[in-house]
Amino acid sequence: MSVVEQVLKGDVRAVARLLRDIDDQVPSTRSILQQLYPHTGNAYVIGITGPPGAGKSTLVDQMTAYYRKQGKTVAILAVDPTSPFSGGAILGDRIRMQRHFLDKDVFIRSLATRGHFGGITKSTHDMITVLDAMGKDIIMIETVGVGQGEVEIAECAHTTLVVTVPGLGDDIQAIKAGIMEIGNIFVVNKADREGAKKTVQELRNLLEMGKKFRMETGAGKNGWDPPVVETQAHKGIGVDTLCGEIEKHREYLTAQAPEELEQIMLKRALHQFSATLKDELFKEVIKRMEGKGLKLEDVAKKIMAKEIDPYSLSRTLIKEEFKEDA
Amino acid sequence: MSVVEQVLKGDVRAVARLLRDIDDQVPSTRSILQQLYPHTGNAYVIGITGPPGAGKSTLVDQMTAYYRKQGKTVAILAVDPTSPFSGGAILGDRIRMQRHFLDKDVFIRSLATRGHFGGITKSTHDMITVLDAMGKDIIMIETVGVGQGEVEIAECAHTTLVVTVPGLGDDIQAIKAGIMEIGNIFVVNKADREGAKKTVQELRNLLEMGKKFRMETGAGKNGWDPPVVETQAHKGIGVDTLCGEIEKHREYLTAQAPEELEQIMLKRALHQFSATLKDELFKEVIKRMEGKGLKLEDVAKKIMAKEIDPYSLSRTLIKEEFKEDA
Repeated sequence: MSVVEQVLKGDVRAVARLLRDIDDQVPSTRSILQQLYPHTGNAYVIGITGPPGAGKSTLVDQMTAYYRKQGKTVAILAVDPTSPFSGGAILGDRIRMQRHFLDKDVFIRSLATRGHFGGITKSTHDMITVLDAMGKDIIMIETVGVGQGEVEIAECAHTTLVVTVPGLGDDIQAIKAGIMEIGNIFVVNKADREGAKKTVQELRNLLEMGKKFRMETGAGKNGWDPPVVETQAHKGIGVDTLCGEIEKHREYLTAQAPEELEQIMLKRALHQFSATLKDELFKEVIKRMEGKGLKLEDVAKKIMAKEIDPYSLSRTLIKEEFKEDA
Repeated sequence: MSVVEQVLKGDVRAVARLLRDIDDQVPSTRSILQQLYPHTGNAYVIGITGPPGAGKSTLVDQMTAYYRKQGKTVAILAVDPTSPFSGGAILGDRIRMQRHFLDKDVFIRSLATRGHFGGITKSTHDMITVLDAMGKDIIMIETVGVGQGEVEIAECAHTTLVVTVPGLGDDIQAIKAGIMEIGNIFVVNKADREGAKKTVQELRNLLEMGKKFRMETGAGKNGWDPPVVETQAHKGIGVDTLCGEIEKHREYLTAQAPEELEQIMLKRALHQFSATLKDELFKEVIKRMEGKGLKLEDVAKKIMAKEIDPYSLSRTLIKEEFKEDA
């Protein structure tokens, strides 16, 4: 059986191998992804983002238990700047995974963002393609941090959760700017902590402000009002409510705002294509450059020595390798 | 006078205009950057990273005051997922800037990461090029978050500070994995808060673990032992000590470990070249594609409808636009 057939049948070992190959940027993955792509589009993708320490992993674990009880299959992709440096964190991940480890309908994979050199967005898209094609009902993408890559990834989800905890900074600054507008649902986790009510209220005020801003400017009179949900993930409290809100958002998208759903899908297609194209173009040019005996490291040395600048060199390479512009 | 001459003379208005053009991706910036590049390499670049709410902005403000007292000129680039949504955050930035607003030797600029579509790394490099060429002694790059883009940017600094505060999460998870190994100096800000000593101790333990790990594996027996500095930035406490440690790290790089300094510069050259090349390649191909009447949005629609997959399309475009491989 071909790898493509194995993946479509949901063969866990074949999928694991393929994801590892994607991670390692093995060239043969390209044609496999080409063949898998038409089989995608069935999974519901949930993005979970927010600052480190907000308890996202525990929340994802509890949500997984919820969806499994409903008989849904789940894939979890944790995009994480993990490194070999901190054994503790990795050990934590392993412990977290054990609960669902023996459940063949839960597929968990961490994608380390180190050493990807800008290719993290492409790898994430590729992996979502695989997990979708293998037939998972729910794909949860957990991203650590609020960087641009993370925001881009979250934007490609059907429903995006922004998770925070009380007491991060003096105010709501921890989830200020940027990620406010990507959240469809806001979660205040560790809601038994001091200051939880204040955090919830501040979030609601910010959301109200944002709503007014949208109304006044007419920019995106979004019909969906993001709810703020309190959870205590470590005790499982609030998880049912949260998953209920996700379901409501899903119904909103499919029944009330199909044009909004299309916008999400279009954005995802655009992101995936851009990331893939950039990656392929870069590899192609570097391959050709090195084929002519010009090593990337030697080029970097010349740039460092200011013998050449990165801007001129990029243009030279384009001129050399591209057909003349029509 | 040409823009290049104006920038080299340190003309603040010309620099501001150029940075805005870089932000807007105006094509004419390319040749200006080409001409500025040979004039770079004099600034000392300090990266400041860490989770949101850690008080990085206040710290940067205090460090600026410190360097100004020494007669050094300063540029601050805040790379921030800021959005028009949250007026509060932006207002906060403006207030923060006011202190040094009238000081012509301090140049402050925020780079919003929204809408850059993956180009944030390139824009940051471009802006560093400009700020370096304009003659600033110290360039501080403040990044919010711990995403990959942020880590890449921090890696290109001479000295990288990782800032945290007590009480982020139940343990040191907040600055776990990934960013541990990029920090040359660790800062526990808001050190008057409860749990500060614990946070400092946990950091020291983690660093000790990392050191042992490096010793055992022989991977990078880094001669620099990252110190942990306690600060209370809002009161200015600990800032002198912190800047003293930065100076020590600078001396370490220049006097004791020039090969390490070269590695940093080489990595920066490599990152800058890769980011520039990727960006130029992508723009070139999209321009050619659209020149043939194929709009990017229509392409995204076809991908969404699964009429074509992003992998095949990327290969087709490369085949069409590149010269035949020799």
